[in-house]
Amino acid sequence: MLRRLLPDSRQPARMVVFGFGLAVLVGTALLLLPVASTSGTPTNWVTALFTATSAVCVTGLIVVDTAAHWSTFGELVVLGLIQIGGLGIMTLASLLGLLVTRRLGLRMQRTAQTETKSLDLGDVRSVIAGVIMVSLTVETLTAAALTARFAIGYGQPLGHAGYFGVFHAVSAFNNAGFALYPNSLMRYATDPWVCVPVLVAIVIGGLGFPVLFGIGRRLRQRQRRLSLHARITLFTYGALVLLGTVTVTAFEWSNPETLGRFGIGGKLLAGVFHGITPRTAGFNTVEVGEMHPATLLVTDILMFIGGGSAGTAGGIKVTTFALLAFVIAAEVRGVPSVHVMGRKLPNGVQRQALTVVLLGVGMVIAATLTLLLLSPFGLDAVLFESISAFGTVGLSTGITADLPHAAQLVLVVLMFTGRLGPITLASALALRERGRRYELPEERPIVG
Amino acid sequence: MLRRLLPDSRQPARMVVFGFGLAVLVGTALLLLPVASTSGTPTNWVTALFTATSAVCVTGLIVVDTAAHWSTFGELVVLGLIQIGGLGIMTLASLLGLLVTRRLGLRMQRTAQTETKSLDLGDVRSVIAGVIMVSLTVETLTAAALTARFAIGYGQPLGHAGYFGVFHAVSAFNNAGFALYPNSLMRYATDPWVCVPVLVAIVIGGLGFPVLFGIGRRLRQRQRRLSLHARITLFTYGALVLLGTVTVTAFEWSNPETLGRFGIGGKLLAGVFHGITPRTAGFNTVEVGEMHPATLLVTDILMFIGGGSAGTAGGIKVTTFALLAFVIAAEVRGVPSVHVMGRKLPNGVQRQALTVVLLGVGMVIAATLTLLLLSPFGLDAVLFESISAFGTVGLSTGITADLPHAAQLVLVVLMFTGRLGPITLASALALRERGRRYELPEERPIVG
Ligand SMILES: [K+]
Ligand SMILES: [K+]
Repeated sequence: MLRRLLPDSRQPARMVVFGFGLAVLVGTALLLLPVASTSGTPTNWVTALFTATSAVCVTGLIVVDTAAHWSTFGELVVLGLIQIGGLGIMTLASLLGLLVTRRLGLRMQRTAQTETKSLDLGDVRSVIAGVIMVSLTVETLTAAALTARFAIGYGQPLGHAGYFGVFHAVSAFNNAGFALYPNSLMRYATDPWVCVPVLVAIVIGGLGFPVLFGIGRRLRQRQRRLSLHARITLFTYGALVLLGTVTVTAFEWSNPETLGRFGIGGKLLAGVFHGITPRTAGFNTVEVGEMHPATLLVTDILMFIGGGSAGTAGGIKVTTFALLAFVIAAEVRGVPSVHVMGRKLPNGVQRQALTVVLLGVGMVIAATLTLLLLSPFGLDAVLFESISAFGTVGLSTGITADLPHAAQLVLVVLMFTGRLGPITLASALALRERGRRYELPEERPIVG
Repeated sequence: MLRRLLPDSRQPARMVVFGFGLAVLVGTALLLLPVASTSGTPTNWVTALFTATSAVCVTGLIVVDTAAHWSTFGELVVLGLIQIGGLGIMTLASLLGLLVTRRLGLRMQRTAQTETKSLDLGDVRSVIAGVIMVSLTVETLTAAALTARFAIGYGQPLGHAGYFGVFHAVSAFNNAGFALYPNSLMRYATDPWVCVPVLVAIVIGGLGFPVLFGIGRRLRQRQRRLSLHARITLFTYGALVLLGTVTVTAFEWSNPETLGRFGIGGKLLAGVFHGITPRTAGFNTVEVGEMHPATLLVTDILMFIGGGSAGTAGGIKVTTFALLAFVIAAEVRGVPSVHVMGRKLPNGVQRQALTVVLLGVGMVIAATLTLLLLSPFGLDAVLFESISAFGTVGLSTGITADLPHAAQLVLVVLMFTGRLGPITLASALALRERGRRYELPEERPIVG
């Protein structure tokens, strides 16, 4: 049974949903304990469920202030859920991606020969080991950098600096966006010694394990070039960060409530931060609710697209977005088959990308509509909130805590389906594909 | 030269753009004349250009009150532009659709044999004759019904009743949405003798000429069943009207500023009206700006989808929307080819529909972003305005006249490209398609 851990096409999707659901329930139960809150009294069940879901789905939306409401035990529960959620997503999505593309690593050479869509124990073990090693390494280095800054630059006692360093490092690498300050990282907006390590951890976590794995092999000279998936991810991730940085910086440059209060260096640092954070990291260094509606709309789009596949980022994923752009470009040019970076895209992948995107649009619209009916807020704030939940981003204009419980439960559903939906959907679709023709050398990026 | 009126794949698209641009310019020139305004002074050029574009593109967005600002001469110019725009769209889109599907009528039997993508004079003549005959018939009957009601029900002098009857009949059939009252048709919200003829004209115009032609042939027993295009259009148009009616009626039922002021009969009549008018008709019988944000969002979606191909309605067209829904359903079920109502969809049509929709989304987002930057209004109102312009709908929350000139010019561009974009784009794409295989009997609905 261990040798065929993910035996058929429907099993993996069910396993993922079950595993994450269990983590949410256990987390909710722990957060309901009186010892989890600073007041020592049991927390409201909607608040506990919302926080557990937000942590497991590495979203970062909050209905109570993390440091003020939760005790240290409660904070450690949140931290544990973030770590479990992040590792779980990276592992499972990588395994599902391996099933689909058969291209993750060396072992692919063997499995690619067979027609049974299964993984052997060696695949599973090497993926899990790789994910844990990368996670711990990046988190440790980030925590060390942050701890040093908090201790040296701000004179915090070493224990406090260490705890804050670890918490925000784990939250950053897992693109979770939970912070122990009431205003996220706004107090560090102009401090590159905090912002840069956080951004590096966000980007490494958000590119996704297959990309990191490919870069690692490339650096060790074991592979001549990166996979199509890795190249598309790096290119699109970079382009979106550039687009986000330029528009946020330009639109907010003289807004006295956001970038306007900083010097040029601070404006640029906070601009870069808010160009990267919509890749579903969820930290913020300026007040999102004070941003111009145009900045919010650009951020909406960036959050919906999200980060890399099989990483800690959410959204429909940068490859899904890029694939559709390539398909449209081919269609407008009148070319029958879609060629990208020297490879032909399989036709099936186009329909998968289309399905992932349009079902995502449908979910966001349905949730936005429900929230509009359940709350007094306008479309700017509600659409932003829905996309932030669907993309597991965690940015908010500040309405989350003021939403009625029914609306918060809608966000719980949206975070859960947004976190698992594109992955499980895309892999289920890809695994079920029939009758492919192999007349040309093809290469399949991961969708969702 | 007349025997090959539309000789190659790029010529028709260019002809359409040129023809509509010329109509807009001539209309603008006429509206700039002092005699066109009630004040007898020349109108501002942005206002004249906006009004001419809105009329030729049968949109109905206005920056000045039609009856108050324009003289009778000016109103007749608007009416003429609406008629030219409506006839032009129906004719050209039908001809382009004929080029693509070769299925419009009897003549198709002949042209389908040849591989050269051209139309002969007989095709062109019969399409133009059909379009003019249908337009004049429906407009005359609607004008007669409205004139009778205005004269008998409201005691208007016959000349006045006749003028108002003709103006609103032409505006309704062409889905133009221009009215001679400051609040569109709000004063007739509970009068079925006005609303029903207007709605019937809207639906007949909005289904599109190929559907009307097919129904006509069916009724005369010349054809066993309707084309796939006609069946998809009728089904989707009906489903969207039902969806719109139910949601608008439910969401606005007790809103004192909209349906709340009416009795049950009035609520239902105005609910049906606002279920149909987002099919890009553009008349309104309740205040759009007072609607709940959730109603506005539903209307946004309905307006974006629009009406039938090769008719007077705008938007991405109901068949485009339905095709994507069919593709997604097939993908989720894991079926390799898309079967709809007993036919297989060609693969190429999926990419065309995807391209039309996503380029439309891109245009709306770009325009919304620009309007947010240029104006003080929020996302609710600005997104509604952009989609209304792109879909050539003409509904507004009331901000059009208050937008700065630069923003109004953005809407001018959006109306023009929204009116011509999907048609010319979809036909250009479809005509350029290469290497189709004919291994299965296929049938191609019109996209865009
Ligand atoms: K997040
Ligand atoms: K209209």
